Amino acid sequence: MIYLDANATEPLRPEAGQAAMAAMGLGNPSSIHAAGRAARRVLEDARESVARFFGADSKDVIFCSGATEANALAVHALGAGRVVLRGATEHDAIRAATPGAEIIPVDRNGQADLVALEASLAADQNQALVCLMAANNETGVLHDIAAAGRICAAHGALLHVDAVQAVGRDNRDWFGLGAASIAVSGHKFGAPMGAGALIVSAGRAVTPLLQGGGQEQGRRGGTPALPAIAGLAAALGAPYEGAKIAAYRDEIEAFCVGLGALVLGTGAPRLPNTSCLALPGVRADTQLIALDMGGIAVSAGSACSSGKVAASHVLEAMGAGNLAGQAIRVSLPWNVAADAVPAFCAAYEKMAARAGLEKLRLGAA
Amino acid sequence: MIYLDANATEPLRPEAGQAAMAAMGLGNPSSIHAAGRAARRVLEDARESVARFFGADSKDVIFCSGATEANALAVHALGAGRVVLRGATEHDAIRAATPGAEIIPVDRNGQADLVALEASLAADQNQALVCLMAANNETGVLHDIAAAGRICAAHGALLHVDAVQAVGRDNRDWFGLGAASIAVSGHKFGAPMGAGALIVSAGRAVTPLLQGGGQEQGRRGGTPALPAIAGLAAALGAPYEGAKIAAYRDEIEAFCVGLGALVLGTGAPRLPNTSCLALPGVRADTQLIALDMGGIAVSAGSACSSGKVAASHVLEAMGAGNLAGQAIRVSLPWNVAADAVPAFCAAYEKMAARAGLEKLRLGAA
Repeated sequence: MIYLDANATEPLRPEAGQAAMAAMGLGNPSSIHAAGRAARRVLEDARESVARFFGADSKDVIFCSGATEANALAVHALGAGRVVLRGATEHDAIRAATPGAEIIPVDRNGQADLVALEASLAADQNQALVCLMAANNETGVLHDIAAAGRICAAHGALLHVDAVQAVGRDNRDWFGLGAASIAVSGHKFGAPMGAGALIVSAGRAVTPLLQGGGQEQGRRGGTPALPAIAGLAAALGAPYEGAKIAAYRDEIEAFCVGLGALVLGTGAPRLPNTSCLALPGVRADTQLIALDMGGIAVSAGSACSSGKVAASHVLEAMGAGNLAGQAIRVSLPWNVAADAVPAFCAAYEKMAARAGLEKLRLGAA
Repeated sequence: MIYLDANATEPLRPEAGQAAMAAMGLGNPSSIHAAGRAARRVLEDARESVARFFGADSKDVIFCSGATEANALAVHALGAGRVVLRGATEHDAIRAATPGAEIIPVDRNGQADLVALEASLAADQNQALVCLMAANNETGVLHDIAAAGRICAAHGALLHVDAVQAVGRDNRDWFGLGAASIAVSGHKFGAPMGAGALIVSAGRAVTPLLQGGGQEQGRRGGTPALPAIAGLAAALGAPYEGAKIAAYRDEIEAFCVGLGALVLGTGAPRLPNTSCLALPGVRADTQLIALDMGGIAVSAGSACSSGKVAASHVLEAMGAGNLAGQAIRVSLPWNVAADAVPAFCAAYEKMAARAGLEKLRLGAA
């Protein structure tokens, strides 16, 4: 099996697995005895690593269960009393957390229309919270967070950046670019599933979504997921060969385009590892099943919705029309092997040829 | 270090650690390719084990980050449109999730006053949600869930049972006793931190607290914490030598009573492993620090509130008066060794003797 679905979950980083295993069986970090203090050191060391990586202060790092919770917490805490705007191609976690939000449209490449954003912010009498993802999970397209940050600052708006797919692949100084908060998920950069973080700009107050025993300085109740958190911190900053991965991605794209595929979002800057490949007239699930039987793991759109393969809201927002139901996502993992490229290309060619024959057969019938 | 703080977190069960490690590095269980299906099998096997253990159907098991979230989800989902009542000694997770709830008082032993519960339910014109913990985290005292279940049923009320401290130590057929839902936390019975579950009675609808990608049949968004969930399922039903542990606990209590300690909650049925020991006139934190320096890890009240040692709301509700700030919790772990008993007793005796001298000194000054 050749795994090319890193945007669903990155393969485990060995250093993250080791850190998680070492943290298993420690005490409760809230206990004041020696066993608790040892656990607390692991927790606070992880918090400091995360803070350092993102140029934040450790007191502004709030660990939680993952990006769905981190994004929901951001909207809950930063959106209170504010008009909420979000990009048209945001992840379901943000979409679900922002019912009734004003939608910032995207262009054909999937980049947020910042003229529209500025017009909306100028029209809003209230202060706003703007939610924009750093990199899209289905296409890899990067929003211009720096420009969005300047526009938000000029209009008194807060900018929340869902940085889930960018972290580890396209690292930026998000707070320097104007983010008020960022959401990250450990397993998207090689940690075990089960931990994420909301990181806020210096000293920003956060009202909790989950309360309880006062953990995370009262901002997130519940015993922290210590193994997954230790893994998250260990995976951050692990080496990433972006140029090599982008070269593999480009090889794959050139080959598939030669077979009639279209690559979506190529007019915008993208993550090095992600390719959204549409094969006109061939349903995405047909492609996926054929590739899966050929030993290739890729996906259609987001992996979050158990088993469903529906037309992608991301591609629809980009004006992809019918192609929105005919595109697959190839997302190369951090440890992609060189032979994954020819293996994928061979399986894709076979799939495309069979789909072409099927179209001929249907046309003849 | 002798660890006697199992109610803060149980030491890792080897089978749970192994299951968690085996689940690290699997795919995203929502992906439809082979790697995703393998992960999904682990998730669904865990769900079936949990369902079987609690006599529930697997579709009624909702995995989440832990008991704080499970309890909050229960109140959110089952409490909508209902009057909420809760016991006076509930854990902070329930207390925080039920602001404004009617309080069911407890007696001097810490058991819920079911006559008061019935009177409240009879007076309420609306249907109610009643939140009662199976076993108290600070005293080990068990509520009479069977009787509470009958009273709730007679008044059209739903009963949510926070079973966090009971699971693995005092297992019951909670749904047979009348629970509409139960909350459990993996690390409280030997799994790694980071997973819990809300389990509801057959077919009960649950509106999500965290939304997102539609996971857990739309009832809890976010990629599940697969390693911690696999560990949770593996730890359930692990052997537990309750009679041996209770005998150790009884030895400890007899010894400490001989030194002037009082044991709280002994008039009620209790967990086999938990002892709430008050030493009149000696602050809980003084006791804790002395015991910690003597190599004994115990706690005062709940471990959930980072580092704070305040008078316990549980003991205050039991009418313990000043003793509420003078009690420690000894909670024996599943793997307690026989030599833990004399070691604890020796450290306790030394601590009590020093505290007695200190009282004499202060009295003389």
